[in-house]
Amino acid sequence: MAVKKVAIVMGSNSDWPTMKLAAEALDKFGISYEAKVVSAHRTPLGMVEFAQKAEENGFEVIIAGAGGAAHLPGMIAAITTLPVLGVPVKSSALNGQDSLLSIVQMPKGIPVATFAIGPAGAANAGLFAVSMLAGHDKELADKLKAYRQEMVEMVAQMKLED
Amino acid sequence: MAVKKVAIVMGSNSDWPTMKLAAEALDKFGISYEAKVVSAHRTPLGMVEFAQKAEENGFEVIIAGAGGAAHLPGMIAAITTLPVLGVPVKSSALNGQDSLLSIVQMPKGIPVATFAIGPAGAANAGLFAVSMLAGHDKELADKLKAYRQEMVEMVAQMKLED
Amino acid sequence: MAVKKVAIVMGSNSDWPTMKLAAEALDKFGISYEAKVVSAHRTPLGMVEFAQKAEENGFEVIIAGAGGAAHLPGMIAAITTLPVLGVPVKSSALNGQDSLLSIVQMPKGIPVATFAIGPAGAANAGLFAVSMLAGHDKELADKLKAYRQEMVEMVAQMKLED
Amino acid sequence: MAVKKVAIVMGSNSDWPTMKLAAEALDKFGISYEAKVVSAHRTPLGMVEFAQKAEENGFEVIIAGAGGAAHLPGMIAAITTLPVLGVPVKSSALNGQDSLLSIVQMPKGIPVATFAIGPAGAANAGLFAVSMLAGHDKELADKLKAYRQEMVEMVAQMKLED
Amino acid sequence: MAVKKVAIVMGSNSDWPTMKLAAEALDKFGISYEAKVVSAHRTPLGMVEFAQKAEENGFEVIIAGAGGAAHLPGMIAAITTLPVLGVPVKSSALNGQDSLLSIVQMPKGIPVATFAIGPAGAANAGLFAVSMLAGHDKELADKLKAYRQEMVEMVAQMKLED
Amino acid sequence: MAVKKVAIVMGSNSDWPTMKLAAEALDKFGISYEAKVVSAHRTPLGMVEFAQKAEENGFEVIIAGAGGAAHLPGMIAAITTLPVLGVPVKSSALNGQDSLLSIVQMPKGIPVATFAIGPAGAANAGLFAVSMLAGHDKELADKLKAYRQEMVEMVAQMKLED
Amino acid sequence: MAVKKVAIVMGSNSDWPTMKLAAEALDKFGISYEAKVVSAHRTPLGMVEFAQKAEENGFEVIIAGAGGAAHLPGMIAAITTLPVLGVPVKSSALNGQDSLLSIVQMPKGIPVATFAIGPAGAANAGLFAVSMLAGHDKELADKLKAYRQEMVEMVAQMKLED
Amino acid sequence: MAVKKVAIVMGSNSDWPTMKLAAEALDKFGISYEAKVVSAHRTPLGMVEFAQKAEENGFEVIIAGAGGAAHLPGMIAAITTLPVLGVPVKSSALNGQDSLLSIVQMPKGIPVATFAIGPAGAANAGLFAVSMLAGHDKELADKLKAYRQEMVEMVAQMKLED
Repeated sequence: MAVKKVAIVMGSNSDWPTMKLAAEALDKFGISYEAKVVSAHRTPLGMVEFAQKAEENGFEVIIAGAGGAAHLPGMIAAITTLPVLGVPVKSSALNGQDSLLSIVQMPKGIPVATFAIGPAGAANAGLFAVSMLAGHDKELADKLKAYRQEMVEMVAQMKLED
Repeated sequence: MAVKKVAIVMGSNSDWPTMKLAAEALDKFGISYEAKVVSAHRTPLGMVEFAQKAEENGFEVIIAGAGGAAHLPGMIAAITTLPVLGVPVKSSALNGQDSLLSIVQMPKGIPVATFAIGPAGAANAGLFAVSMLAGHDKELADKLKAYRQEMVEMVAQMKLED
Repeated sequence: MAVKKVAIVMGSNSDWPTMKLAAEALDKFGISYEAKVVSAHRTPLGMVEFAQKAEENGFEVIIAGAGGAAHLPGMIAAITTLPVLGVPVKSSALNGQDSLLSIVQMPKGIPVATFAIGPAGAANAGLFAVSMLAGHDKELADKLKAYRQEMVEMVAQMKLED
Repeated sequence: MAVKKVAIVMGSNSDWPTMKLAAEALDKFGISYEAKVVSAHRTPLGMVEFAQKAEENGFEVIIAGAGGAAHLPGMIAAITTLPVLGVPVKSSALNGQDSLLSIVQMPKGIPVATFAIGPAGAANAGLFAVSMLAGHDKELADKLKAYRQEMVEMVAQMKLED
Repeated sequence: MAVKKVAIVMGSNSDWPTMKLAAEALDKFGISYEAKVVSAHRTPLGMVEFAQKAEENGFEVIIAGAGGAAHLPGMIAAITTLPVLGVPVKSSALNGQDSLLSIVQMPKGIPVATFAIGPAGAANAGLFAVSMLAGHDKELADKLKAYRQEMVEMVAQMKLED
Repeated sequence: MAVKKVAIVMGSNSDWPTMKLAAEALDKFGISYEAKVVSAHRTPLGMVEFAQKAEENGFEVIIAGAGGAAHLPGMIAAITTLPVLGVPVKSSALNGQDSLLSIVQMPKGIPVATFAIGPAGAANAGLFAVSMLAGHDKELADKLKAYRQEMVEMVAQMKLED
Repeated sequence: MAVKKVAIVMGSNSDWPTMKLAAEALDKFGISYEAKVVSAHRTPLGMVEFAQKAEENGFEVIIAGAGGAAHLPGMIAAITTLPVLGVPVKSSALNGQDSLLSIVQMPKGIPVATFAIGPAGAANAGLFAVSMLAGHDKELADKLKAYRQEMVEMVAQMKLED
Repeated sequence: MAVKKVAIVMGSNSDWPTMKLAAEALDKFGISYEAKVVSAHRTPLGMVEFAQKAEENGFEVIIAGAGGAAHLPGMIAAITTLPVLGVPVKSSALNGQDSLLSIVQMPKGIPVATFAIGPAGAANAGLFAVSMLAGHDKELADKLKAYRQEMVEMVAQMKLED
């Protein structure tokens, strides 16, 4: 079985409607991934174990989504040296402003690459993972350029209608 | 040697000017404590170990201060079932708004009792620990009431001068 | 009749859909409580009397929820030396940002242990009360550890489905 | 001795540099006032007594300043039916945004007339008290109109210089 | 015909669902008022004329509501020396945060007494007007005290039900 | 005497250190202007007169700066149909967030073209006035293009040094 | 075929429900315009080309709307010296606060005239374009004055009804 | 001459005190980089050219820092398919909140990996670039693990002193 290159983890299955956009972005480019629930708060030791074994399990990049006091991306980044991409999930009271600040404002030493609040951010985390993997995969790099060209054409065909 | 009842932990020694107000509050009431640096991000495994052993080490309550993407209080609370008191340390860019939201907006299941941003919050975390311990210590409860009375007298003596 | 250990108070019965999550958390652990409406603004003298008598009425901890200019937790904390847990109820215009700041930003001397905005915060205030009471109740402490274990299993069974 | 018409109260003497602008505004119009420290949090029963006796003590309006979780104006307004003017004092971490929301977001039933954060707000609370008292004092009303005219002239003489 | 003591003005008839709570508060106390649309932005000269004639038209207090860049209360306050009460109407994009800051942050010299965002603030502006008028109307003052007592009873009867 | 094409007005001479950057931008392009203090709040009738006569006085565009509850740009825009450019001056407590929202959130019907908070915004209001006047002045348009080219060269010469 | 004087561009056709209010404002005054999708992010080179050719294509002013990290108005302004009017489109998570700051906070040298968040801002950008064009078009200037008079009458006829 | 793997670009040399922490992080790991000023607003065509040639010039990752309406990271990301890391520089009025939102809230399709506001974020962008390059460089990966170990030891030696 082929090794999964990307892990997509999230604090709860209620984050999946957001996080599946990361999965869809990877699917579009034929990148294998594993998606599962890992909670920094409810399964802290499972989270530690996941992060400790991520590299030996063959993951090259980890996408982590969480909402509210969103500690998952930062804690995984604290344990592994793999690149961690953080997605702030829109929270109920504060619309994800808490999620964004909890993920992006990491202290010097432990980076989390952070993306926009909500589904657009999840999709972009997936695309960013693609761009990272494309650094050593000419075919993937070409696909990414083609995807950009598709966007140009999609915009060209947009109509403004009432 | 007497067991320390309260642990005061913080992500960096730069948090100490804030967190020492928690220590001073405990000192005032004769409560023993241990203060040290434990970083969720830079020493994640040390943090896990600290939290796992906190109860057997005799701590009854943990005061944790952190700034920015402040994960320390929430992660300790995720690992131990001891009560955790969180102090948002004032951060450089966002004045502790990020610290506050990262600490207080915990998901259902893992509570962190949060106090005000900065030194006043640290002092109050210390006083709250006193009020908890006073629940089973009549003498301490009386001291706490006396402290409140001191504040009444202090206010009574305040002068308004140019 | 057994004495109630926890009081759950709130500024209006419109806060009950939020605050009942605190009650449910206590129920789950078999902790007796009394829940009622006490308004800092509309029944200030009743609030003072409630706070003054809380200790002699046998309460060991008070959970207070309020929204907007949320003064109830802080005012009760000013009058009693019992530990007060504050829950910011989500307000209509500002989504509870006003409630949160009004509760958490207490001055040095009078702590209010503050939890997340809305139902998650209410549930966590209940759980925090449990953790406090568990300090002198081995059976309760064991139940709390079991509850944590349940969460681990609940997360383990989460499926990611469209 | 003449009765004081206005009470200026504040949570701490550290609020006086802000609140004295209210006093100066009243002085300018020859309105008698009494200024003192009354803390909702540190002297709650003293605060209750102050508010209960304010009317019989001859006060017609109360100016209350506080910072952070600023409960003083709202609690006084909850106890007396006299008009209460609230001044948000600039706080250390959040620049008075917490003070403003804690004062202005009062629930239906208990109004606090709120002014700008800091010294300008204190001055304006004083001037608003003047405008209230001027409703039944033709001489005072004329003075207030003259004051407005002075401002017109002051603006007319402003120079723009490097 | 009896003179109206209170003017209730607002920038648009879309503000009326909010502002009518001020009218209802006055109705409850039998205070006569006139309510109409006066827009600082769309009818600036009409607004100036309204403010200039407000005193000779017998108004003793003006309640002004507006949303967004809410200039109406401040501009009326700049022209008349009558007390002006400002109500921030909840705006579409920013939930009234813009309305609140535009009304409350007046410069030194021109006060606007500001109340909470939305209907609660409108009701409270009405009640504050009552408290002002009650200063020289013993019967009204008694009614206001009775209203407070009604609130105490209303709270006493609140049930907490699912 | 040549007619001034641009008016620069501000609520106080304390705004001049910010607003003079608009003047300097106009100076650089040889555009005549008149700068003076006009306060919406302290000189409302003078402000109305200024706005009513602006067109007949030959002004083609008005730059208005103000801080806090910044009503000046919007009120001038309400009275004249000339284009009004608004500059949010940095305020003491809220860093100009109040100024920005008070200026930019104008209701449908009365536009104010708003620029950045503080000196950069004032300079840009001046440059925007230049771009407007350049629409019918080929020489000025060429100067503006040359200014852009100067910026390219200035950036090219920037060194990164410790 | 007559040259279009105004270009209305936006990052996506999903912005059209907002941006069409700019078109409707121009329609009302008989100003010709061209509206189309130009995305700074998805069609950056098309955006550059659009901005480079805008002047030779006869446009005198450009209205650009965008949401989130809204770069379109600022990037067009960086390339052309024509006046650029920016409209912050309401974004999904942050209600357009991100759009507003991304558009208005331009650095010294490259101005974007910014209007309110959402449809009101789009309408006002259209009206501001009218006011600019009216500077050299007496008939248009008269129409604009008539439009203002219509608003006065519309306000005069507003009824306050339940 | 060896090819530089990382480009560090920023809108102005005033951003260098922040951005040099990215350079220092790369230096520490022996990664070659080129640092220079490229302004999206003042040198838009230079910015386009830089982004278009970045890949053929051998860069594997681009770190871009900017403040205020910070368009540089997003515009470079729109033109190249290389991974772009964005650093919000602390701005004068809004402390980098505008910079953060302008960088992180990118639309679906064009990701920018965003880091904390200010120097810590710049350092972390550098470290994240290291983690990316370490994916195909075992020696670098080992150095990164050693760096983490250094942090553990540094924390272990922290003293809490007055």
